[in-house]
Amino acid sequence: MTLRVGELSESGLLARIFPLLDGSASVLLGPGDDAAVVAAPDGRMVVSIDTQVQDRDFRLQWANGYASTGYDVGWKAAAQNLSDINAMGAVASSLVVSLTLPETTPVSWAEGLTEGLNAAIRELGAADCSVAGGDLSGGSEIVVTVAVMGSLQGRKPVLRSGAQDGDTVALAGTVGHAAAGWAVLESEDDGGGGQLGDSGRFHDGRPDDGGDRPDVVALFCRPRPPLAAGPAAAIAGATAMLDISDGLIRDAGRLARASGVSLDLDRAALAQLARPLAGTAALLGADPMDWVLGGGEDHGLLATFPPGLPLPDGFTAIGSIVPGGRKIESVPPVTIAGIAADTVGWDHFAV
Amino acid sequence: MTLRVGELSESGLLARIFPLLDGSASVLLGPGDDAAVVAAPDGRMVVSIDTQVQDRDFRLQWANGYASTGYDVGWKAAAQNLSDINAMGAVASSLVVSLTLPETTPVSWAEGLTEGLNAAIRELGAADCSVAGGDLSGGSEIVVTVAVMGSLQGRKPVLRSGAQDGDTVALAGTVGHAAAGWAVLESEDDGGGGQLGDSGRFHDGRPDDGGDRPDVVALFCRPRPPLAAGPAAAIAGATAMLDISDGLIRDAGRLARASGVSLDLDRAALAQLARPLAGTAALLGADPMDWVLGGGEDHGLLATFPPGLPLPDGFTAIGSIVPGGRKIESVPPVTIAGIAADTVGWDHFAV
Repeated sequence: MTLRVGELSESGLLARIFPLLDGSASVLLGPGDDAAVVAAPDGRMVVSIDTQVQDRDFRLQWANGYASTGYDVGWKAAAQNLSDINAMGAVASSLVVSLTLPETTPVSWAEGLTEGLNAAIRELGAADCSVAGGDLSGGSEIVVTVAVMGSLQGRKPVLRSGAQDGDTVALAGTVGHAAAGWAVLESEDDGGGGQLGDSGRFHDGRPDDGGDRPDVVALFCRPRPPLAAGPAAAIAGATAMLDISDGLIRDAGRLARASGVSLDLDRAALAQLARPLAGTAALLGADPMDWVLGGGEDHGLLATFPPGLPLPDGFTAIGSIVPGGRKIESVPPVTIAGIAADTVGWDHFAV
Repeated sequence: MTLRVGELSESGLLARIFPLLDGSASVLLGPGDDAAVVAAPDGRMVVSIDTQVQDRDFRLQWANGYASTGYDVGWKAAAQNLSDINAMGAVASSLVVSLTLPETTPVSWAEGLTEGLNAAIRELGAADCSVAGGDLSGGSEIVVTVAVMGSLQGRKPVLRSGAQDGDTVALAGTVGHAAAGWAVLESEDDGGGGQLGDSGRFHDGRPDDGGDRPDVVALFCRPRPPLAAGPAAAIAGATAMLDISDGLIRDAGRLARASGVSLDLDRAALAQLARPLAGTAALLGADPMDWVLGGGEDHGLLATFPPGLPLPDGFTAIGSIVPGGRKIESVPPVTIAGIAADTVGWDHFAV
């Protein structure tokens, strides 16, 4: 018999969830009172909020038979919020979590979610961060909202709007891998012959129960934002930064427009980013460059640095800010080797 | 033609919402980047999160024909979160908001929600607070999550766990009014002859479009937590405090158990609290004491103060901590004139 959350009281469910969470030095007063208290050592707090909705952001059953486990959804909820703090050059200090769960949700799924949250914080290296509090509600579909707080450690936040003419454009982390994983999950089969792993098993959310998922599926389900890179970029003097959550071209466009500059991406660097995805793309009959240019949710960082500055660990140059580009009406915000990215057919870049 | 949110892009909807929001000195960097930056002047931040779900916490159409407008839902989302900060003796500095909306939601409903959030912040007196950021998602039902941050202004937080033997138990704000309003909304008729106001009109969420709602319905839809009272209690030396969101007896029990004390409520004081609800109760054939003892969501404050200390403005004594009560196994956490609250029939207290 599967125990469902509707069979427990709110306090009964909380009593199962709270012991699964680690504490941290940043959380001065944790769950249990009307509100928590979190340290903000430099007198400021960076804050963001992000939501995942069942059948929009994850599926309990994908077309190819895989399941998003509670552990996956918790991991992803933590990871995408931690990434927003990373993108400001800050270090996360706490999460508060609101879970809306149908009464039929297995208690083990909610426990898995909690373990996934906790594991992402730990394994991604957010050592000063823990869950400070939360809220539970009933609803007809699962909605997971996390608000995240972080510390700038005395530094200025790195905004989207600071890129300058001549800056180097650099990437930390991956792009396109999560999109490839999503394509595998949404494919009707697993690529034939089981090359894409063991499918069809319902995972109840334990950390060792990810199945034999291909790397790109694992990365879609449990993204790994490069949390050391954000503060490193800020310390190194990054002029602008954001995390790539909606695709390289779209997010590069946001940075370019916010900064009033034109951003050119390097064709060879993009080809290099597509290379590790070639095998999966071939199995699905897809173009890996579509994933590199349009895929979000790897939560890599796109940042700009003054020209000639050594890039901090984890960053690779993939383009530059076009000198004078902002002055020329006809230069679009994002180009690839000088050609407007939104008018370039992706197959120009097949590798 | 009603414009629906599904007809706008996310950025198109945000472009309609952001201009409706005021700023504040606490929000150092507002919406538009990966995260916001909020001032935390004393090096700590109080934080909480709370969710409202359609058909659980509000209805677009109640049994008696009233509608919860977007403005109501936004107001309530702000109010219940501001109340959690108030209950720590702190002052709110910012909200971050996540909206999950079906594609069919009228854009005017979402705009009304934004106006309601903003109006609650302003009209409840949270002068140092504004919305710092947010997130929009699609879903099959409306889910509104707000995370709130606040400043302790150098003071210690007032916890649930500090009540001492002999302390005075005091209330700020109201109890039972929201429960009475809920009972009106869930009643099949409006009490006969229209005494309970004009019903059946769909409100599109504008501030002046609350209809001729009776006061208790207005208070259920737009609660008015006493935001000056929390910091005043902390300054005056309150030993314990929480906001009454789940009912006086239940929340008094939480305070008593957290503090390891026994809390006795005064029968005459309770009768006094029930008096303003007698008219509505008579119309519905209900007992107003049920609402006073069991009703939540007015978001009044329950606090304890050392005996003999003058109570701060807005607080009224309604009981005391029983000296030695924690030592006696047979004394329950909450009593009314010495009788265990959970074994007392409410009709003992009919007024």
